[in-house]
Amino acid sequence: MTVVAAPTLHVTKGHGTQNDFVLLDDRDARVELSAALVRGLADRRAGVGGDGVIRVVASEHLPEGVAALAEEPAAHWFMDYRNGDGSVAEMCGNGVRVFAAYLERLGLWDAADGELALGTRAGVRRVRRVEVPAGIGDDVWYAVDMGRWHLPGGADAVRAGADAEVDVAGLEVARAGLSVDVGNPHVVLALGDEDELAAADLSRAPQVTPVPPNGTNVELVVPLGEHEAPDGSLVGRLRMRVHERGVGETRSCGTGACAAALAVRTWAGVGAPDVWLVDVPGGTVRVSVLPDGHVELAGPAVLVAAADVDLTALTAGR
Amino acid sequence: MTVVAAPTLHVTKGHGTQNDFVLLDDRDARVELSAALVRGLADRRAGVGGDGVIRVVASEHLPEGVAALAEEPAAHWFMDYRNGDGSVAEMCGNGVRVFAAYLERLGLWDAADGELALGTRAGVRRVRRVEVPAGIGDDVWYAVDMGRWHLPGGADAVRAGADAEVDVAGLEVARAGLSVDVGNPHVVLALGDEDELAAADLSRAPQVTPVPPNGTNVELVVPLGEHEAPDGSLVGRLRMRVHERGVGETRSCGTGACAAALAVRTWAGVGAPDVWLVDVPGGTVRVSVLPDGHVELAGPAVLVAAADVDLTALTAGR
Repeated sequence: MTVVAAPTLHVTKGHGTQNDFVLLDDRDARVELSAALVRGLADRRAGVGGDGVIRVVASEHLPEGVAALAEEPAAHWFMDYRNGDGSVAEMCGNGVRVFAAYLERLGLWDAADGELALGTRAGVRRVRRVEVPAGIGDDVWYAVDMGRWHLPGGADAVRAGADAEVDVAGLEVARAGLSVDVGNPHVVLALGDEDELAAADLSRAPQVTPVPPNGTNVELVVPLGEHEAPDGSLVGRLRMRVHERGVGETRSCGTGACAAALAVRTWAGVGAPDVWLVDVPGGTVRVSVLPDGHVELAGPAVLVAAADVDLTALTAGR
Repeated sequence: MTVVAAPTLHVTKGHGTQNDFVLLDDRDARVELSAALVRGLADRRAGVGGDGVIRVVASEHLPEGVAALAEEPAAHWFMDYRNGDGSVAEMCGNGVRVFAAYLERLGLWDAADGELALGTRAGVRRVRRVEVPAGIGDDVWYAVDMGRWHLPGGADAVRAGADAEVDVAGLEVARAGLSVDVGNPHVVLALGDEDELAAADLSRAPQVTPVPPNGTNVELVVPLGEHEAPDGSLVGRLRMRVHERGVGETRSCGTGACAAALAVRTWAGVGAPDVWLVDVPGGTVRVSVLPDGHVELAGPAVLVAAADVDLTALTAGR
């Protein structure tokens, strides 16, 4: 480890479809990861910069980790995820892939040995290395089971294709939207074409009616059709933009991509593909509807830089 | 040096009042600093992140550096500044301080030996370490001579206190503004109080009349009064926000701070202080009007992290 000045913290910066993180190897739980330190590391101008901070820690060192071990004894490593504002978060779909790539880099997991079970505050998650879909580039891809999903509007919403009305700045008329729950709330609306998608102004939160009691993420999607994969199976494709609840527009939202694919699949009806490539502003991910009522998200994870952070400088000049 | 994966580029991240940069020690001019590499390094999500990239290179290796040497033989080091979009830039007031701090870190300049003359595409700049003004924190401060300034509106503008009208979103009426040239164009307008300063919406460019032929930076200022420095001299203080031409609102703009202080000093008339502390969103800088028609900008420079960037990963997953 290069030490540039004491006290120094060694971190890694990585991202999944441009949802980016400061990663910290603290396997023995020796770092006091205060909210102030998280905010400093995540600060894009005075710090390293990231949407969040992810700490690798042995499950046995955290109460939530011990809970994960009770659920699944193989969940040796715990993903301690913090939002950039210093608050504790349960899970992050893109973050899980970057966490897995980081464990590989650290030599703490070998993808050749099979699936990784990791602890999160939302329970155990399972990750595996997967082949990159044809034509999507040469990154390393991981798939993670995102758990159960459902349509809160039920059969009525499926029949109508909608259970909400959404007003988006930059679009002339309000649109019908479909609510999708992927552990967190989403409303998905289809636009006519990519010009309309580009015209939407997501610098302001879309107005959803009826107003969701806990707010909602909103996905704008344009279905791009279906094609046959090399194995003969049907794959759908769509482009989306997302407004994340309490955050604003982002380059990528893992649960949002799942919700978008699930909504378009619902609209397509019987015979629709179970696998969807979703183009988000930060890249492409793949959503697979699993037979057990779960949904799987696959996509790239990239480790960009290893950095020695001067902790004194981190709080200076701000 | 930790090598995370070949090919790797070793960089440093630093900032001056949160105007942030990726710094590169390329003293022998061995790195092909393409626009694509600059964009990759400056990318806040898929790269390291910064407003710009600053390369340290020996003047003798660059045509512009040789010109600097001709102007001033002591200008051994050249600040090769690039904007985050990959374009070449002439100079950056906050960047010069960070460049000086980086030269110190590299052992290429010792502030105890006196002034540093450095080459830039706008000519030679002179930097020195200065004491931090009382009550402003414990960072390391540098002062740089920013060169000549003038009021394009001349004596008429001085008498009227204005030569432009500026419409700012979020403010009810248009305001009178004063044009100030600090090597680049600025229009400065005074607001009534800090509430009004906070109410201004700089997500859109203010509308200036008459329309400046090459655009302009716009500074909104609130004078905060004057106080006596420990040495008995008068020091003015003001708070400002800035909309940078072609960029948007930023946390700090070096020439903008100079322009703001020069405008408020003009409005204050005879007997006004020659030294001004300027609170920008990213911190505090000091502007001094020099007797020779030049203006000096002083402020902090912070080196936050040293990083090894994986150049393969930099272009991946985007």
